[in-house]
Amino acid sequence: MMGVVVQNIERADPEVIDGLAACGVATVHEAQGRTGLLASYMRPIYAGARIAGSAVTISAPPGDNWMVHVAIEQLKAGDILLLAPTSPCEDGYFGDLLATSAQARGCRGLIIDAGVRDVRDLTEMNFPVWSKAVYAQGTVKNTLGSVNIPVVCANALVNPGDVIVADDDGVCVVPRANAAKVLEASRAREANEAGKRTRLAAGEFSLDVFDLRQRIMDAGLRYV
Amino acid sequence: MMGVVVQNIERADPEVIDGLAACGVATVHEAQGRTGLLASYMRPIYAGARIAGSAVTISAPPGDNWMVHVAIEQLKAGDILLLAPTSPCEDGYFGDLLATSAQARGCRGLIIDAGVRDVRDLTEMNFPVWSKAVYAQGTVKNTLGSVNIPVVCANALVNPGDVIVADDDGVCVVPRANAAKVLEASRAREANEAGKRTRLAAGEFSLDVFDLRQRIMDAGLRYV
Amino acid sequence: MMGVVVQNIERADPEVIDGLAACGVATVHEAQGRTGLLASYMRPIYAGARIAGSAVTISAPPGDNWMVHVAIEQLKAGDILLLAPTSPCEDGYFGDLLATSAQARGCRGLIIDAGVRDVRDLTEMNFPVWSKAVYAQGTVKNTLGSVNIPVVCANALVNPGDVIVADDDGVCVVPRANAAKVLEASRAREANEAGKRTRLAAGEFSLDVFDLRQRIMDAGLRYV
Amino acid sequence: MMGVVVQNIERADPEVIDGLAACGVATVHEAQGRTGLLASYMRPIYAGARIAGSAVTISAPPGDNWMVHVAIEQLKAGDILLLAPTSPCEDGYFGDLLATSAQARGCRGLIIDAGVRDVRDLTEMNFPVWSKAVYAQGTVKNTLGSVNIPVVCANALVNPGDVIVADDDGVCVVPRANAAKVLEASRAREANEAGKRTRLAAGEFSLDVFDLRQRIMDAGLRYV
Amino acid sequence: MMGVVVQNIERADPEVIDGLAACGVATVHEAQGRTGLLASYMRPIYAGARIAGSAVTISAPPGDNWMVHVAIEQLKAGDILLLAPTSPCEDGYFGDLLATSAQARGCRGLIIDAGVRDVRDLTEMNFPVWSKAVYAQGTVKNTLGSVNIPVVCANALVNPGDVIVADDDGVCVVPRANAAKVLEASRAREANEAGKRTRLAAGEFSLDVFDLRQRIMDAGLRYV
Amino acid sequence: MMGVVVQNIERADPEVIDGLAACGVATVHEAQGRTGLLASYMRPIYAGARIAGSAVTISAPPGDNWMVHVAIEQLKAGDILLLAPTSPCEDGYFGDLLATSAQARGCRGLIIDAGVRDVRDLTEMNFPVWSKAVYAQGTVKNTLGSVNIPVVCANALVNPGDVIVADDDGVCVVPRANAAKVLEASRAREANEAGKRTRLAAGEFSLDVFDLRQRIMDAGLRYV
Repeated sequence: MMGVVVQNIERADPEVIDGLAACGVATVHEAQGRTGLLASYMRPIYAGARIAGSAVTISAPPGDNWMVHVAIEQLKAGDILLLAPTSPCEDGYFGDLLATSAQARGCRGLIIDAGVRDVRDLTEMNFPVWSKAVYAQGTVKNTLGSVNIPVVCANALVNPGDVIVADDDGVCVVPRANAAKVLEASRAREANEAGKRTRLAAGEFSLDVFDLRQRIMDAGLRYV
Repeated sequence: MMGVVVQNIERADPEVIDGLAACGVATVHEAQGRTGLLASYMRPIYAGARIAGSAVTISAPPGDNWMVHVAIEQLKAGDILLLAPTSPCEDGYFGDLLATSAQARGCRGLIIDAGVRDVRDLTEMNFPVWSKAVYAQGTVKNTLGSVNIPVVCANALVNPGDVIVADDDGVCVVPRANAAKVLEASRAREANEAGKRTRLAAGEFSLDVFDLRQRIMDAGLRYV
Repeated sequence: MMGVVVQNIERADPEVIDGLAACGVATVHEAQGRTGLLASYMRPIYAGARIAGSAVTISAPPGDNWMVHVAIEQLKAGDILLLAPTSPCEDGYFGDLLATSAQARGCRGLIIDAGVRDVRDLTEMNFPVWSKAVYAQGTVKNTLGSVNIPVVCANALVNPGDVIVADDDGVCVVPRANAAKVLEASRAREANEAGKRTRLAAGEFSLDVFDLRQRIMDAGLRYV
Repeated sequence: MMGVVVQNIERADPEVIDGLAACGVATVHEAQGRTGLLASYMRPIYAGARIAGSAVTISAPPGDNWMVHVAIEQLKAGDILLLAPTSPCEDGYFGDLLATSAQARGCRGLIIDAGVRDVRDLTEMNFPVWSKAVYAQGTVKNTLGSVNIPVVCANALVNPGDVIVADDDGVCVVPRANAAKVLEASRAREANEAGKRTRLAAGEFSLDVFDLRQRIMDAGLRYV
Repeated sequence: MMGVVVQNIERADPEVIDGLAACGVATVHEAQGRTGLLASYMRPIYAGARIAGSAVTISAPPGDNWMVHVAIEQLKAGDILLLAPTSPCEDGYFGDLLATSAQARGCRGLIIDAGVRDVRDLTEMNFPVWSKAVYAQGTVKNTLGSVNIPVVCANALVNPGDVIVADDDGVCVVPRANAAKVLEASRAREANEAGKRTRLAAGEFSLDVFDLRQRIMDAGLRYV
Repeated sequence: MMGVVVQNIERADPEVIDGLAACGVATVHEAQGRTGLLASYMRPIYAGARIAGSAVTISAPPGDNWMVHVAIEQLKAGDILLLAPTSPCEDGYFGDLLATSAQARGCRGLIIDAGVRDVRDLTEMNFPVWSKAVYAQGTVKNTLGSVNIPVVCANALVNPGDVIVADDDGVCVVPRANAAKVLEASRAREANEAGKRTRLAAGEFSLDVFDLRQRIMDAGLRYV
């Protein structure tokens, strides 16, 4: 299974992808039935980024970033690199040189279930990364991995070409085939929430806005 | 013990509460004999907030935020929501809609030994949260918990109406009955520190400013 | 081994130290053969600081900051305090008063495999700290430790007078005797990377810029 | 709050205590409404022990076991020592000498939210311990704590004289005043389970034995 | 995706399954190209068990074991229950009653990325469990999940009917379609190792037995 | 620093080494001034082993066990292998084949700040291992490390030839030059403890046996 680069992957519609980015992780996650979240330890290196893109996946050995170089050649504008190590690792697979290269190819960011370094430079370059660790530890280039195979990354299954949505709340994966449908559901959810937000801001209780009052009484809640 | 909402809780004097906020967590914690700190994993979603308020406590099942809706109705201006799950959980019990509602009721922030989401929105709203995790994972509304009962939150006992103080150093709970006395001790401590800070800034050694030199020699420290 | 203060330690050349600061942790770590990194849990209390200095080391018991006071007297301008507890601890050994004193003696920052507090004040003072935790928990002054003895800090060996380099990527220790050589290697690395960065920014692939293409084919990578 | 030894504490009825031991942690926890569990990281040093006893509580500074010596003098036959450090610590506060002393006083075991050592000896002595860590790290005797005050231990509130139940599933605290009632509920639960166990062993489905089938259909479960 | 029970799943050949059990986790993992391992935190509740079986998968909400009851009805002799919570959870979903029922249906064990309780009883019943935690915390039966859908469990993808192999080294999943081929490779590996073990036991160096000596010299290893 | 094998290392006197094994980790750690402990996460794969030996150290890249093969050739009877990865890793560097080889060379056990596998076989072989993890994950043989250089292992400095003592309490390193002196101190400590154990077993209080009563009163402890 190691040592393979899949060159032609299908990607979702760019407008759908950008629509999902605008909705953000929490909404998209809800809209697809509360699935697809990566583990909560995946944190952004700086606050405020909100991106979506097509996953170019990397399966790499611990402490070996050879495949990152290979994957960058497979990038198309709008893609997101996503790396899952074959065993847990916090090494810094990725820094400012690789970010320069990825950004030059139109890459929108990196999702890595491992470490990243040069984070000050990446912040200045406006190249967002969600990672398990920030760690300067260098890597070698001695063992093959694979590019654009299905991977499990931070406890979520990601297929190449799936849509990755990432913001300050974390990272969510949307299966490519569902992207349009999930966008539609996300927008419906946003529309629904807008009206509720107005009522809540005006001081109405969420017990009323969400129609929870009767059910909570039926369940036996006692006010004392 | 589950399924109860205590509606009338006593709160500390608002001026005392605001006084404690001004002193900050480290000073208040010292002033009450180094007790009351929540665990160090309780971190703010953005830097710079410093608040105090009366605890409206929530005991909630893992992955179920029904009781948050119930608790918001119990809020008075100046209160702080504090949620302890009945077993460890990192789900995102709270997001921008609930924050809108809580803020409309005068709530000053949230302390949650679990996850929070929509943190970009919460930051823009200036609604501070101290949490164990940032995680978009949604929750259900199926199982009762309780509001305004004593809870153990992040390894600290919190009674409803206790004063919560929170800033970049973490979160501290001050038992309501002690609040005035702790404020007094906090201010005494601040006054005492002000003089010492001036001397230290001028280059005096803390061994002298704190009268530690003789004791350390008595203990047998050897300079080589 | 406890209860000793070594007063005269050798330090590296100040120009070398400042040169290492300019290179940053990732480069210095690579330049000395990928050694010397402290554990990835050592994180800065605010983003953007990049410092280097001579280590004044502290071995302290858990929850006891007596030796920090002792160590401050040993500081010379340009030094960095580095504290390793004798067993794992997250207590807040250090706050704004000690920072005021240390800064008055010319100290550039603190590396502590434990907790720190008053981080808002420290941030305003521009006194950078890399720590395992932010935690308001107070400490006592009852048990001796030592100053300027070799310590293992966050899984790295640090001798007093070694050069500490710290930035957003973490913390690296450079043995004093190697400092000049490591600076030279760091600068060579930087010069080498500059040309590569230009080529990568222009869209060349790193497989070509780093001459990886043939080797990866020899290793048997298959493109499908 | 530090530096106090409460000498006279009330204890639950010894027969009730022994009855709770026989029921075990999982049953007792259920019988008192799923409350009172200590954190899951509290693990026994050897398998197979199942004890209950009255808590003699210890609040101790990190890395200082002075108060353990003080607490042992407060033990009565059938008691259990329970130690909560004032900040997180894994040091080995307790070993074979203290166990010899405690056992000589009739102590049934130790619950410690920190470390223990000499575990081979303790196992041979049949002195059970539930701890956060096994760690040989020694402690000092320099700072006071307290004995028989309320403590939060591994995220559970324990008052002196509360009943501690501990077995391979972990540790549960039963408030002293509730002990008899909880024992009654525990035995009712056991009686109820016995019949169900027989039916389940005979091959009936738990969906039927627990009458879950209709409710699950009402909730909309789909079989495909 | 929630609320579905897939009733008919395909299973691998029973002889192949038993063959994989005999080979054990480390060998099977190697034989299928070093893939399929669950995270290292999945530990057995007692030493010495070595099983294999067809996965009946459960996706369950945090703290809700309703679906375990549903899944047990889907078991056939030789199956293994495998539960992945929809968000991280350590609650005790499973105890001696459910084990009695599962064992009566021929179930060989449980793999659960959460908690288990009644471990003393389970040990006596010889019902092996690999879990993230041992924790007596009870669960509710209020929210639907699904049975026999693909799940990600402890960072590994498991499809219903895949072969699970578990022993003291952890847990490995073998895709159903590959089971026969992986068994063949496992046996080849064992045969190959048997000869090597004899040579190593006789004192030959592994550098010679594995033909590593030349390559290590070529790589530039220096003996000093 | 990588790619070196130091062939001739000095070892401590075999009788001293065996003497230290008999004393055990807790005693030896105390006798050398409470230093030298490895982190508490280093746990034995089975209970009851107590060994000491001379450290043959291995510095290895993450997920690469090439150097273990090299190190085994450097073993002499009575040695202990000690592996520190160059960055955190839990992979299974070592299993039954390597153990067969090491045992054939007289090796007494393995200390590894990473993972181990085939633990059932190792237990049957009576080959003890203290490790960070049990994990079947395989490793490669592609990148050089070093043998018999100083390493930091689980937060402790180990020089080749230092004496390693390991038992159920964990792992302790004794610098070779100090071994005889530490043994003497360990035995003195044991002799001293023997008398105290007898008194404690007879029911005397440790406050009296250790002469703590006056000091605790002087410190201000209050009995209420």
